[in-house]
Amino acid sequence: MNGKQAAGQKAIDEIKEGMTIGLGTGSTVYYFLEALAEKVADGFELTGVATSQKTIDLAKEWRIPMLPLNEVTKIDVTIDGADEVDSQLSGIKGGGGALLYEKLVAKASDRRIWIVDSSKKVEQLGTFPLPVEVVPFGWKHVEAYFTGKGYHPKLRCSADGQPYVTDAHHNILDLHLQSITNAEELANELDHLTGVVEHGLFIGMTEKVIIGYPDGHTETLER
Amino acid sequence: MNGKQAAGQKAIDEIKEGMTIGLGTGSTVYYFLEALAEKVADGFELTGVATSQKTIDLAKEWRIPMLPLNEVTKIDVTIDGADEVDSQLSGIKGGGGALLYEKLVAKASDRRIWIVDSSKKVEQLGTFPLPVEVVPFGWKHVEAYFTGKGYHPKLRCSADGQPYVTDAHHNILDLHLQSITNAEELANELDHLTGVVEHGLFIGMTEKVIIGYPDGHTETLER
Repeated sequence: MNGKQAAGQKAIDEIKEGMTIGLGTGSTVYYFLEALAEKVADGFELTGVATSQKTIDLAKEWRIPMLPLNEVTKIDVTIDGADEVDSQLSGIKGGGGALLYEKLVAKASDRRIWIVDSSKKVEQLGTFPLPVEVVPFGWKHVEAYFTGKGYHPKLRCSADGQPYVTDAHHNILDLHLQSITNAEELANELDHLTGVVEHGLFIGMTEKVIIGYPDGHTETLER
Repeated sequence: MNGKQAAGQKAIDEIKEGMTIGLGTGSTVYYFLEALAEKVADGFELTGVATSQKTIDLAKEWRIPMLPLNEVTKIDVTIDGADEVDSQLSGIKGGGGALLYEKLVAKASDRRIWIVDSSKKVEQLGTFPLPVEVVPFGWKHVEAYFTGKGYHPKLRCSADGQPYVTDAHHNILDLHLQSITNAEELANELDHLTGVVEHGLFIGMTEKVIIGYPDGHTETLER
């Protein structure tokens, strides 16, 4: 057992038969999907909505019934990870590159629950670089703007050294901010920038956070 | 001579040797590009930055030297069309589907000039449907939001009946608003929506509008 596994398995308690469930992306969500697949194998009926191609692939492998976001009218609950979460249950997401689809699925959900290991809990957001999904056309002008503002942008690259491309054909600039003193102000600024498709600040979008600890126990924060 | 041709040809007066010029998209810009190509053929030196694949293709055919937006640090002036323009020189763009790249090029420009025929001049924006560029993943949820707000969204389709796909791999929802009473408020709302990449409201982004009339004369509005 590790913290990710503890949180991922605990989240299965939130699932009821017949639900439409948003399925996040990442290494903690992996354990939740594993537990969900066991339920499905036992005959439990549910529908999943994925937030990334990676999750679609995993769900297929584990025979979890899936529908695309465009084919459901609403999602009962979304279980997703986060890269950082503060005491207000705001956080940074997008380390895995799926922030855009994750935010779209979250917005379509009645309830949103994050599952994280205890290392993701922070006093202040910003140590983890903030992912900003940008349009490839002219991204260098967005980068220049961020540099001018002192946001220390860095184009995310894949293992082969080429720019990382998201499922939606965009690139990602990671902002190395160290600390974010006013997340709402920053989110508002990023929302208005031409060329920015979405950013990894999720503010007030989560009702519950399940934190897993290395010894296997979990802690639940609620708003 | 028609209004588009008159405006397109008049804009050539704005061009000086050595400039980097943003090249818009559309039927009025066509006449400007034609005039620009004549200058290039005469040995005039300049660099163009296109706002669409259509304009890239036309510029190549006419041997206008081009660079992508990511390879220039700034643009001296951008010449582009518009679908509607009001007395404040705010407007609606995107009828041709190039609004995202047009706005990115406009933002990177020192000066922005619109060339339109006289039919584009309006008292109030909104008769022309407002194009909103959306991420294909989950666009139906954005559509449902617009419907709920009474914005009358309509997914743009190509001649073959399939959803229109922009150069950046997005779709377009045209909002049939009839009239826009507060363009800034609407732009702000659209900027904040997850799944909206960009919209066709260009507010306070143009210094000069050249209006061409059917008899061949032009009128210039400046801010």
